[in-house]
Amino acid sequence: MQIYDYYKDLIESGKMPEGTRLPSIRRCAKERNVSKTTVEQGYMCLCDDGYILPKSQSGYYVSKRGNTTKKTETKEETASQKNAILYDFASSGVDAESFNMDIWRRYLKSALRQGERLLFYGDPQGEYDLRREIAKYARETRNCVCTEENIVIGAGVQTLLNILCPLVKNKKSVCFDDLSYRQGTAIFSDYGFKVNDNREKSNIIYVSPSYSTRWGDVMSVKDRFDLTDFARKNNKLIIEDDYGSEFRYFNRPTPSLQGLDGGENVVYLGTFSKLLLPSIRISFMILPKGLTEAYMKKKDLYNQTVSKADQIALCSYIRDGHLNSQIRKSRKIYAQKSKILTDLLAENFGKTVTILKTNSPLYVRCKFNINMTTEAFCKSAEKSGILLIPANTSEEYPEIAFSVATVGQNNLSNAVILLEKVVRNS
Amino acid sequence: MQIYDYYKDLIESGKMPEGTRLPSIRRCAKERNVSKTTVEQGYMCLCDDGYILPKSQSGYYVSKRGNTTKKTETKEETASQKNAILYDFASSGVDAESFNMDIWRRYLKSALRQGERLLFYGDPQGEYDLRREIAKYARETRNCVCTEENIVIGAGVQTLLNILCPLVKNKKSVCFDDLSYRQGTAIFSDYGFKVNDNREKSNIIYVSPSYSTRWGDVMSVKDRFDLTDFARKNNKLIIEDDYGSEFRYFNRPTPSLQGLDGGENVVYLGTFSKLLLPSIRISFMILPKGLTEAYMKKKDLYNQTVSKADQIALCSYIRDGHLNSQIRKSRKIYAQKSKILTDLLAENFGKTVTILKTNSPLYVRCKFNINMTTEAFCKSAEKSGILLIPANTSEEYPEIAFSVATVGQNNLSNAVILLEKVVRNS
Repeated sequence: MQIYDYYKDLIESGKMPEGTRLPSIRRCAKERNVSKTTVEQGYMCLCDDGYILPKSQSGYYVSKRGNTTKKTETKEETASQKNAILYDFASSGVDAESFNMDIWRRYLKSALRQGERLLFYGDPQGEYDLRREIAKYARETRNCVCTEENIVIGAGVQTLLNILCPLVKNKKSVCFDDLSYRQGTAIFSDYGFKVNDNREKSNIIYVSPSYSTRWGDVMSVKDRFDLTDFARKNNKLIIEDDYGSEFRYFNRPTPSLQGLDGGENVVYLGTFSKLLLPSIRISFMILPKGLTEAYMKKKDLYNQTVSKADQIALCSYIRDGHLNSQIRKSRKIYAQKSKILTDLLAENFGKTVTILKTNSPLYVRCKFNINMTTEAFCKSAEKSGILLIPANTSEEYPEIAFSVATVGQNNLSNAVILLEKVVRNS
Repeated sequence: MQIYDYYKDLIESGKMPEGTRLPSIRRCAKERNVSKTTVEQGYMCLCDDGYILPKSQSGYYVSKRGNTTKKTETKEETASQKNAILYDFASSGVDAESFNMDIWRRYLKSALRQGERLLFYGDPQGEYDLRREIAKYARETRNCVCTEENIVIGAGVQTLLNILCPLVKNKKSVCFDDLSYRQGTAIFSDYGFKVNDNREKSNIIYVSPSYSTRWGDVMSVKDRFDLTDFARKNNKLIIEDDYGSEFRYFNRPTPSLQGLDGGENVVYLGTFSKLLLPSIRISFMILPKGLTEAYMKKKDLYNQTVSKADQIALCSYIRDGHLNSQIRKSRKIYAQKSKILTDLLAENFGKTVTILKTNSPLYVRCKFNINMTTEAFCKSAEKSGILLIPANTSEEYPEIAFSVATVGQNNLSNAVILLEKVVRNS
C-alpha cells in the first residue's frame, strides 16, 4: 500500500493537481525499487478509489475526483461532493486482483499463432470447438440441457438479443422484472416489442433468477418450477439472463431455469465478460430446439461478432480448466472480503448493526438500528464518498447491502470507519 | 510449390482419403527440411484450392472436395461435380499472402500488456484514441468530413446497423441497389423497414459506390453528386457502405459520398475485416451531426462489441502507418496478379478473347468472341472447378470478370490452361 498512500497524500494535499501524469509503472517500480506488480496494484487501487484515471496508452493521470477527495472528507455536508466516490459498495464490477492476466495473455498469444486459421471467416454461430466447451460448461455448472448445436456465440448479450428478437417477433410483448435494466429493455423496444413488468400480459418473460435482488437474492427452486410451469401452461417464452450466476451462490448453485425446464421453453443467456475481463466481449445464448431450427435457416445472414482469436483462446482456456479455477478463486476472494467486512461492521457499530443473511459471497447485508430511512442513510453515505445499495424491505430501519466486488481488501477498514463517522454525525 | 504438388498428388490419387490428417506444419517442415513458412504457404494454397480444410486447433484434413478433384478434371461433363472448386475467381475474400500476421501479432501482444486498461469497461462508442485515428484515416483516404465525435466502432457492419436502425426508425423504407446483399437487407427487415430497390419510393438509400458492379465498377464523381443532390432535395438519408473501397481504385480513389455531401446527409460505413483479416471483426460508422446527437442520448444503452485489446492494437497499428502500407502492398499484389492473368488470357485464347477496361486492380474483365451465353460459359467453367463472375452487359458474347483476390499467383497459369480446355471442348 506504500505506493497507494504515497500518491493519495500527494493528490489530496493538492501537490499533484488534476491532470498530472503519474510516472509509468516501469519507472515508478525502478525509482522506488519495488516490483512492477506492486506498483500496478497500487495504481489500480488509486483507480478504484477515483484518485487517478487511466488514459489510453499514455498512462495514469490525477482525476478531478482525486483532488476533491480531501474537501469531501472535511466538509461532508456540501451536496456538491457527489462525484467524490471513495468506496463503491454498489459496483457490479469485478475484483481487479482476482484475474490472472498472464494466463489469458498466454492463451491469446498461442491463438494468434494459428495464422492459417485466422485467415478464414469463422462460423457465424461461433467456432465449433468453443461452442462444444461452452455447452459442456453450461451442462456441468448450470444443469443446462444443450449441445454445441444449440449455442450461439456473440460479442455481448445485446448482440445475441439482436439475433433473438427477430426470431421471436411474433411474440409482441416482453416482461422485465427489473425495468431499470435499460440495456435489455432498449433492444426489445428497438424491435417494437411492448415492454412492461406484467408477466400475465406478456408473451416473453425476461428474468435473471440468479440476481433477483440487487443484493444477490436468488430465485428458489420452487419459484423456478412455478415460473417454468406458468410459462409452459400459458405458452410464454422465458429468457433467462443468468448473468453473474457464478458468484451468486456459496456452494452448489440452484439449477438454471433452462435446465429445470428441460431446455424446451427457455432461452439461456450467459456471459464471460464478468468472469474474465469486462473488456473481453464474449457471451453465449442457448436456444431451444424450435428456435435453433429457425436460427439455422437465418444464421448465414448474421456475421459472427467475436474475433476468432478470442474464441480460440477462450476455448483452450476453458478446456484446460482455467475458467473453473478462476471462478473458484474469485468466489474465495469475495467470501473472504465479505467475512472481513462483516467483522468490521460488528466491531465498529456494535449493537447499532444487525447482519442479515445473504446467499451470495459477493454481498454483505445488514440493518442499522437507528431512526433513519434507508434512502437518507445512503444519501449521507454518498456525500462522504461511500456508495451503498439500498436494500430496504421494511421502513422502520435502514437496510443496506454492500457489494465487495471492487473495493480492495485493504480499503474495507477505512471504509467502515468513515461510515461509522457518517452515521454518528447524522 | 513442392509441398503443394506433393500433397495434391497424394490426395487426387486417393492415397490420402477424405478426413486424413496432414502432418503439423512444424513436423512437415522438419521432415521435408524446409522452412515453416514454405509449408504454411503450401498448405494455404491447398486450402485455397479446396484440397484440404483447416480444423480448429487440430490441424489440416483432406476435404471431400479434394478427393473429387481428380474425377472432375477427367470427366468434366458430369454435373455432379459442382462442389469441386479449384480456382475461385468469384471470391470476395482477401489474399492470404498479403497480410503480415507477425506485425499484427506484435501489436496485439503489446495491447495485452496494458493490463490495467483492460480491467475497465470501454467507451460504448469505441476507444477515444482509436476513433481519432479512424477519423484521421477516413479524412485522408476517403475525404470524409468527420471527427472522433462522429465515429462509432462496432464488431462488423451489422452491429453498427443494429445501432443505426433504431435511430432512423421514422424513415420506414430503405432502397438497396443490390437486393442480393441479404446481410444488409435482413437487418432492416428485422426492424420492420420496407426494403426495395426503388430510390424514389424509399426514405433511405443504401449504396456501395465503390462497388457498384460485382466486377469493381465504381460510381463516377458526377453520379455521386447527382445522388447526393437527389437525396438532399428529396430529404432522403444516404447510407454509404464503402466496403472494399481500398482496392477498388488504381490511383487516387473517387471521394466518398460522405465527403462530397459534406457529411450532413450521409452515414458512412467502413470495415477493417477486409484490410486485415476476415477473422478480425472491427468496423466503424460515421454519423452526421443530427444522428450523432441522437446517438449520444442513447449510447449508454449499447455496449461496445469490440474487445478492447483489438481496439488498442488497431489504434497503434494505424498510427504507426502499417494500415496504409498494408493497403499499398495488397494493391500492388492484386495489380500484379491482374497483369499476369491478362497476359495469360491473351496468350492462351489469342483472338478469342478481348480484354475490357476495369478501374479496379482486383478484377480482370474480358469478352470471349464465341457463340455462347455468359451464363452457359460460367456454368461449364464451374463444372470444371473454375468460378467466374458473369459480367454480361450484352447478350451476343459471354462477358466475364475474374477476381484475383484469393487465387494464388502460382495457380493462375493452370487455371487459364484449364479454362481454355473447357472453352475448346464446349
